[in-house]
Amino acid sequence: MAIFTAETHQEMMDFLKKQTPHANIHVDDEEALKHSANGKAEDSIQGKIFAYVEVGDIEDIRGTLKTARKYHLPVVPQTADTSTVIGADGINGSIILSLKRLNRIKELSVDDALAVVEPGVINQDLDRAARKKGMFYAPDPASKPISSIGGNVSTNAGGMSCLKYGATKDNVLGLKVMLADGRELKLGGRTLKQAFGYDLTQLFIGSEGTLGIVTEITVRLRPLPQGQSVTGIAFFENMTALAKGVNKLRLSGLNFSMLEALDGKTVVALDQYEKTHYSKSADSSMLIFGFDDASEEEPKVSEKILKESGAWGIDITTDHEKAKKLIKMRQDMLVAVFAQSKYYIMEDMAVPLSKLAEMVDYIGQVAKKQNVDIYTAGHAGDGNLHPTLLWNNQPDAPEEVIEAIRLLFRKTLSLGGTISGEHAVGMSKNQWTVEELGSDVDQIQHEIKNIFDPLGILNPKRKIN
Amino acid sequence: MAIFTAETHQEMMDFLKKQTPHANIHVDDEEALKHSANGKAEDSIQGKIFAYVEVGDIEDIRGTLKTARKYHLPVVPQTADTSTVIGADGINGSIILSLKRLNRIKELSVDDALAVVEPGVINQDLDRAARKKGMFYAPDPASKPISSIGGNVSTNAGGMSCLKYGATKDNVLGLKVMLADGRELKLGGRTLKQAFGYDLTQLFIGSEGTLGIVTEITVRLRPLPQGQSVTGIAFFENMTALAKGVNKLRLSGLNFSMLEALDGKTVVALDQYEKTHYSKSADSSMLIFGFDDASEEEPKVSEKILKESGAWGIDITTDHEKAKKLIKMRQDMLVAVFAQSKYYIMEDMAVPLSKLAEMVDYIGQVAKKQNVDIYTAGHAGDGNLHPTLLWNNQPDAPEEVIEAIRLLFRKTLSLGGTISGEHAVGMSKNQWTVEELGSDVDQIQHEIKNIFDPLGILNPKRKIN
Repeated sequence: MAIFTAETHQEMMDFLKKQTPHANIHVDDEEALKHSANGKAEDSIQGKIFAYVEVGDIEDIRGTLKTARKYHLPVVPQTADTSTVIGADGINGSIILSLKRLNRIKELSVDDALAVVEPGVINQDLDRAARKKGMFYAPDPASKPISSIGGNVSTNAGGMSCLKYGATKDNVLGLKVMLADGRELKLGGRTLKQAFGYDLTQLFIGSEGTLGIVTEITVRLRPLPQGQSVTGIAFFENMTALAKGVNKLRLSGLNFSMLEALDGKTVVALDQYEKTHYSKSADSSMLIFGFDDASEEEPKVSEKILKESGAWGIDITTDHEKAKKLIKMRQDMLVAVFAQSKYYIMEDMAVPLSKLAEMVDYIGQVAKKQNVDIYTAGHAGDGNLHPTLLWNNQPDAPEEVIEAIRLLFRKTLSLGGTISGEHAVGMSKNQWTVEELGSDVDQIQHEIKNIFDPLGILNPKRKIN
Repeated sequence: MAIFTAETHQEMMDFLKKQTPHANIHVDDEEALKHSANGKAEDSIQGKIFAYVEVGDIEDIRGTLKTARKYHLPVVPQTADTSTVIGADGINGSIILSLKRLNRIKELSVDDALAVVEPGVINQDLDRAARKKGMFYAPDPASKPISSIGGNVSTNAGGMSCLKYGATKDNVLGLKVMLADGRELKLGGRTLKQAFGYDLTQLFIGSEGTLGIVTEITVRLRPLPQGQSVTGIAFFENMTALAKGVNKLRLSGLNFSMLEALDGKTVVALDQYEKTHYSKSADSSMLIFGFDDASEEEPKVSEKILKESGAWGIDITTDHEKAKKLIKMRQDMLVAVFAQSKYYIMEDMAVPLSKLAEMVDYIGQVAKKQNVDIYTAGHAGDGNLHPTLLWNNQPDAPEEVIEAIRLLFRKTLSLGGTISGEHAVGMSKNQWTVEELGSDVDQIQHEIKNIFDPLGILNPKRKIN
């Protein structure tokens, strides 16, 4: 990016303000600083942003993009700023285009089983609004209370219920997006089936703000299931045994809505945080499972399979309050683990289902070999794991942590997995593009980016190299 | 395309043969003629193909594309040749690249809950192979016994079970494709969750052979449900009443795996074909519904809702043979309707769920207004309708039929629907691109096409204009 004189800087700011009449523009203030580096100002290695622009409407988005085009400024789209992969932090000289004020649920149609929302709507707010009308919004990332639908779309966010209802990509029917040149596109629509054009809706889902600004999202809602909600826990000797048990459950034909794994260390951390007493030893792993629409038979068959798989402490409940506590425990997992150290990285990889046991076993090996503290939890039923690596004393990850992550990524790829299951790529992983996707796909990704954003102003250096 | 002299023609043929050592090449014979126009040689308005090439392996595909690039020949990818939208018919001077010999199930992994197949594998063959191992392949287009997985991927084929398990797009994990320039890409993979690159897998699904040749498909398999299979029928005064009833069932939270509508005329045709006696009057419409994993309650609740919706003749069965007959009847629908006249067009549109009643009502109005014989059936639970328009005396559709289709498409779009729910676009509908998608998306589609196939040799004049 060019270096601008004070005069040019003032001219740019005047132009931006004129083009965005309904925006709140923050420059050099606390708000600008806070949002420039994912809420951690001290980590602001990316340098200083030009402005943090909270747009008030579509015209403000258009005006922000016009300014960015005119002065070749990078634009970083942001909603709730919860990226775990440095996907929405400010870049030196950039405009952070915050969509968080665009948080209206524009329509919630029971009859069409869909909602039309602005990108800043918080996932949980949408789900609650739907439940009031007998429907629900299925995708439930752990960040559900704080993350936005716009962000969920940008990362193709997952969650616990992916097992039954798929990820964000499986729950979006249509999008409105604004391209870097200000053109608005309507992609997809309001129907469950669509086979007309190339599936540009899916191309935008998970594109991390690099192809356009998502201005409206039509999501699928589902009627609340009428059957029994059942939640249970079980303990295994270790994560490898748990992974094997999960594979048996998964292949049983039972219709689980949740199959979540917590390793022994995570359970200990949770016990500390929640003042509970689940941990048997630092090695014994915990499975939290559930049905949102169970038959009479399903809990019984689950119990039988769990016992055959060597599980103990099996506790299955239909009690709503007890179940809520268990699910809250799973949701609190991150906070409990992060409380163990000031410095951590949570990773996110997915492996083919049969490789889950091998992968969790390997994580244990790497922790020992690299002498790194690793807490592992994950959506076991999807083969999706979140090892969290902790360290002390310094903000930047030490070499043994970096090497541990490298080893985990290599192993994931060698097992036919992906190093991003549901957290996307951001700046944390895009240097792995050729290794995961190959150089031909890498090249094609750049050609696609070039169609939508020929000036390269949208979230540069993220997603693709 | 250029006009070639006899010498050039011979040179081209020699080159093609040399480049495709394992292919069966048909020129000017019955096989070439048959496959040049979707099995209806007398309809061969597209002119004469250069060759019909049944490739034997990947190298033959590469050689065919090399020949096409060298002499600028259009390449029409084809597998089972069951397109309903003129998607795989020969074009004047083209090479039909038949993938039907590539019909191996390369892997069927219960542990990873997936299969890896070549494009020529017939849908039903894959499903049967999976069932032998306790799994199944969910997408079930009516063409299931004759259509290929490659074709299903190219069109994003749907079916009855979409309601519960989604369309082809929701059941594909990864693809291998060969681009026009011979490069092979590996897209997606073997994991249920993926959030790394742009979703090029989804871009290829439904791209109708215009972006590359699909050489391998990794599909998701699911464990067979363990619950009760339940099938039922019910009758309604007309399709409008049925549509309203279906909406109530759909919003009940019951987990249907099938909600299929047949209008009165279709039921009469089926009675003739099957020697059954379901038709009450030419107006009374029939619903076939099912659960593949029913609770105790679900059939009872369905019956209650159906009665409240004014349905009669409700017959719900768990008897396997009886259920098989009902489903066979739904599957025979096309044959029974097509038996009513030599000339017909089956259409395919999807509307938002709440608009189903209005759409079926409008179909009836158009039939009257245009004096056209229309039989309507469809996947009512998905808002996906298949009106079949019949006429006599001439192969080409008469003006009143063309106008009826135009009216139905316009109405579909005005209701927020799509004029292709699951049959794709082909040459039948691509002139509607701007009307359905808008001119900006139209332009972007061409730019995307240009990345993958800059010479424009892959299935030209299909999908996009």
